[in-house]
Amino acid sequence: MIATTNSFTIPTREKGLTEITAEVAKHVASSGVVDGTATVFIRHTSASLVIFENADPSAAQDLLTFFERLVPEDTEGYVHTLEGADDITSHIRMVLTRTSEVIPIGGGKLMLGTWQGLFLFEHRRAPHRREIVVNVMGSSRG
Amino acid sequence: MIATTNSFTIPTREKGLTEITAEVAKHVASSGVVDGTATVFIRHTSASLVIFENADPSAAQDLLTFFERLVPEDTEGYVHTLEGADDITSHIRMVLTRTSEVIPIGGGKLMLGTWQGLFLFEHRRAPHRREIVVNVMGSSRG
Amino acid sequence: MIATTNSFTIPTREKGLTEITAEVAKHVASSGVVDGTATVFIRHTSASLVIFENADPSAAQDLLTFFERLVPEDTEGYVHTLEGADDITSHIRMVLTRTSEVIPIGGGKLMLGTWQGLFLFEHRRAPHRREIVVNVMGSSRG
Repeated sequence: MIATTNSFTIPTREKGLTEITAEVAKHVASSGVVDGTATVFIRHTSASLVIFENADPSAAQDLLTFFERLVPEDTEGYVHTLEGADDITSHIRMVLTRTSEVIPIGGGKLMLGTWQGLFLFEHRRAPHRREIVVNVMGSSRG
Repeated sequence: MIATTNSFTIPTREKGLTEITAEVAKHVASSGVVDGTATVFIRHTSASLVIFENADPSAAQDLLTFFERLVPEDTEGYVHTLEGADDITSHIRMVLTRTSEVIPIGGGKLMLGTWQGLFLFEHRRAPHRREIVVNVMGSSRG
Repeated sequence: MIATTNSFTIPTREKGLTEITAEVAKHVASSGVVDGTATVFIRHTSASLVIFENADPSAAQDLLTFFERLVPEDTEGYVHTLEGADDITSHIRMVLTRTSEVIPIGGGKLMLGTWQGLFLFEHRRAPHRREIVVNVMGSSRG
């Protein structure tokens, strides 16, 4: 059995999705784990993770449209807006999506479906550097 | 320590919940894991997983009502609707629920609460075959 | 490799967040795991888990405001309301947040970000006792 924990940083430019599947797959490959799990975790409360359709960019565009409507920045009654209108709304959008995502590993590979990619979901308007932690754990070859 | 990754397929007929607790419990039992985790993962972006009340079917009915209202299919402004009005809405409903669910194992059993069941949540109108991956990992007896 | 599964109980008084990071950190410390994961799981369908901003209480207040508006208790058309208006709404709020949360462990510590805390999210009006399960798994020192 093997257990390794590593981290990497992703720069974001604005609200939206950035695919990080390849970075996670690299950690899985170098770990030597055959059957196990990859636990991906974002160390922030104003950005999150989602597994999402990775073939057609229009799906990501509609997802942003949905969240702009569901958690609008011009909502009245919020207190936690010190850093701007996208402060509390970023925390709420993070709660509605995911901080950790666990993907099974089988035969040494991430068991993602054909159309699935793992994405960082930035909720702030301004560029940020986001830290992602990856734990890979499971049985080793031979 | 043991780590096993397997998969099974669940047919769905329409939008709604299908309980898969028994299938996952079977993989836990046959693994021989005493203390550990069962990671359940759905390999699709238009269906998801939820842990939900499993005693009274009226709860699942209300959950569907809620999602029909929160993410209505007749929303204007979506682009990703090539496969029909339930195309992008299925992806959004998936994002708002879960792709992976991790359940601790203690004493060789899933540590679910009395009223908890694990469900596949189908978001498409038409029947589908959905592939579920289960990783069971942890300490072994003796 | 080590795998331990334990549980603890948290009393809640009303709707809202209760931080449980310290309890989980204690289980990680006593496990002796260096690199691995802490899987935290709530055994209920009317309370949930969230990783959330833990510095400013106004963020939690706004989160409650958001959920009162998104899943209001005076909604028409629900069937599952036997235990009161906060019955089905609690289940729905649980589905929109998380039942399990997996936090990577690195160097013997939870890899949480600076502003992240793990919280129990109570959705019922009345006080409850909530059972939390923690599995800690990974490589051991030496």
